[in-house]
Amino acid sequence: MSTPYTFSLRAQQITSSTIREILKVTERPEIISFAGGLPAPVGFPVDTINAAFDNVLQQHGRTALQYGPTEGYAPLREWVAEDLKRVGADDVTIDEVLIVSGSQQALDLLGKLFVDPGSKVLVEAPSYLGALQSFSLYEPRYETVPTDEEGLIPEGLTDERMADARFIYALPNFQNPTGRTLSLERRKALVQRCAQAGVPIIEDDPYGDLRYAGESLPGLLGLGRQAGATVIRLGSFSKVLAPGLRLGYIVAPKAIIAKLVQIKQATDLHTATLTQMAVYETVRSGFLTEHLPTVREIYKQQCGYMLDAMQEHFPDSATWTRPEGGMFIWVKLAEHIDAHELLARAIAQNVAFVPGAPFYAGAQAEHNTLRLSFVTVPEARIRQGIGVLGRLIHESQPVAAIAAA
Amino acid sequence: MSTPYTFSLRAQQITSSTIREILKVTERPEIISFAGGLPAPVGFPVDTINAAFDNVLQQHGRTALQYGPTEGYAPLREWVAEDLKRVGADDVTIDEVLIVSGSQQALDLLGKLFVDPGSKVLVEAPSYLGALQSFSLYEPRYETVPTDEEGLIPEGLTDERMADARFIYALPNFQNPTGRTLSLERRKALVQRCAQAGVPIIEDDPYGDLRYAGESLPGLLGLGRQAGATVIRLGSFSKVLAPGLRLGYIVAPKAIIAKLVQIKQATDLHTATLTQMAVYETVRSGFLTEHLPTVREIYKQQCGYMLDAMQEHFPDSATWTRPEGGMFIWVKLAEHIDAHELLARAIAQNVAFVPGAPFYAGAQAEHNTLRLSFVTVPEARIRQGIGVLGRLIHESQPVAAIAAA
Repeated sequence: MSTPYTFSLRAQQITSSTIREILKVTERPEIISFAGGLPAPVGFPVDTINAAFDNVLQQHGRTALQYGPTEGYAPLREWVAEDLKRVGADDVTIDEVLIVSGSQQALDLLGKLFVDPGSKVLVEAPSYLGALQSFSLYEPRYETVPTDEEGLIPEGLTDERMADARFIYALPNFQNPTGRTLSLERRKALVQRCAQAGVPIIEDDPYGDLRYAGESLPGLLGLGRQAGATVIRLGSFSKVLAPGLRLGYIVAPKAIIAKLVQIKQATDLHTATLTQMAVYETVRSGFLTEHLPTVREIYKQQCGYMLDAMQEHFPDSATWTRPEGGMFIWVKLAEHIDAHELLARAIAQNVAFVPGAPFYAGAQAEHNTLRLSFVTVPEARIRQGIGVLGRLIHESQPVAAIAAA
Repeated sequence: MSTPYTFSLRAQQITSSTIREILKVTERPEIISFAGGLPAPVGFPVDTINAAFDNVLQQHGRTALQYGPTEGYAPLREWVAEDLKRVGADDVTIDEVLIVSGSQQALDLLGKLFVDPGSKVLVEAPSYLGALQSFSLYEPRYETVPTDEEGLIPEGLTDERMADARFIYALPNFQNPTGRTLSLERRKALVQRCAQAGVPIIEDDPYGDLRYAGESLPGLLGLGRQAGATVIRLGSFSKVLAPGLRLGYIVAPKAIIAKLVQIKQATDLHTATLTQMAVYETVRSGFLTEHLPTVREIYKQQCGYMLDAMQEHFPDSATWTRPEGGMFIWVKLAEHIDAHELLARAIAQNVAFVPGAPFYAGAQAEHNTLRLSFVTVPEARIRQGIGVLGRLIHESQPVAAIAAA
């Protein structure tokens, strides 16, 4: 008998994800978890969504349960095109919109569309881990773009770095994992630079509507179109309605959408008709305008609880971001502290977070960084968990001392 | 300014699908379409599904709208494992089941798992076009296995053909596009041969529950496990409940499921929680046992209408399959008739079907074949449309005569 099966090289290269392993631990109820990227379920408009499913099934049941076009449900695509005016893109048409099964699927489709083995792909350092995992299936060669407190540094987009890059992947608002926001000046410099170099920008913006401080900034899509750049914008209903629906969208020039439609057809035929119709039913009459302030208020409060507790418990040697929206705070510890090692001690005390290193593509990982999510944990437990972390950070020994022990 | 973007080689190779182009035409209401693969919407249990969504949202709304595990909703996975006893697989455990977003997604995940550029993949001649499109994104080298009235011919699985094949993809019940069913003897020979050669079998069985004639045969999964073969079974709720839900599953050995979970996480995180919970709510108490006879009766009647009309209108030179289930009849016309050319004339008379050639991977396409779907067209229009087709086939000139004209 021969060996029973042979995996592809890409499948052989996949390793177990650190976050995945951590999230398994955090399912234990005694754990105070700052690790997950889950939105606060208290913000889910359950009754409104229920009524929308009812309406759709009662009025258009057989259509909602039938196969549908790969492009997506036309009224929902219209709604998306119209809604983009809020972020400064005035001229989007329905054939520039593709509905997808959550914006993680958008990343997979874009990997298929743009990445050959060895293709250069530019990402922020650090960047969203799920995007790195998704693109990695198509075996790109990552190059990282340096960042600071205002997000990615446009001067880092040197001619050499931009040469032959298939795209640059950026999260301009309350970035995952850092919570940082790209300044207006830098947005303009970024799209100028990409227009000039002929490098498409993938603008991933799942959190843009969750701004609870500061002023809204125009998205890269509108700015990019004015500057002559190719911008592919990813949007999601996961954070503004609910992630369990798995619904998102891609906005891009027609020729790119047309190719993505062919790719999506081969990938999953189309996104669930019923879900698309029910979400359209939910948002069509402006529901998000009344709903989003509620969600923002929850997130703002939660963020405040965590920042207060960090101020009280973390040592002066630690620094962290103060996000204007979204779900994450990024912490930089003293150079000598390894966040993986800290995590092991934290889990022993029933507290979890995600070490920063996996968010870096390539070798420049900063091992003294970590990501904290503040949205799903109640106030008292935030204070308790941050207290534990603060104590453990204070107790941290230099890495060299640990190795020598 | 540089060129605005560069597509991957795989994306450049995608061409517009014949079926896709045909389906666009068939959206016109005056067209009698035998082209689609859409299930009959009259068979969708709209009220039952509506009640299930209501129950789930009212009782577990926040869980149903939250992110969920990549593996799928555990009770639904349990249900699938248990349900497989009906097709002769008694020992399936929950960690051998992965829930996917429609079984088209299963094909994409399996392409990612098994196919490197140039990998040999075995498919029936002809085979399901959607599978060929899905696998093609991973650039396999197809080899076709010959078939006859009883399905694929196990003697065609020569040592040379099996050598280094990553898998064989087979549809044992009422195959798409032919409607043919693999005989029990051949099922046994197939799994024996694959066990011996160490080639995994992908058993795609979306139509197995839609048998309206003849006797049920054990699936390849159960037979294969007894014979020591690696069988990966794909199932779907599209034909037994409704395709607009986009819900299916993969059953495979644990080590394969574990790798597929990692791949699926990078592909779309997980399948919609709400949909999984609502489908579980629908099927948990045996609903399909009462519902499926209704669906089968509709399909049986529809199939009968078409076969009757073909008997009346098609010339003796045409032959066709008499399916025992499923949705499709496969027609072989006289050698000199090109089905593409026939289609052009048929569409001019407001009748559509799918030519057979695109269902063949590689160069051995039989251009005098076509696929007819009988499930969504009312009786009178079936008779009318088949009448038109019969007349056009009678009028068909030899290909050489057309070329010379």
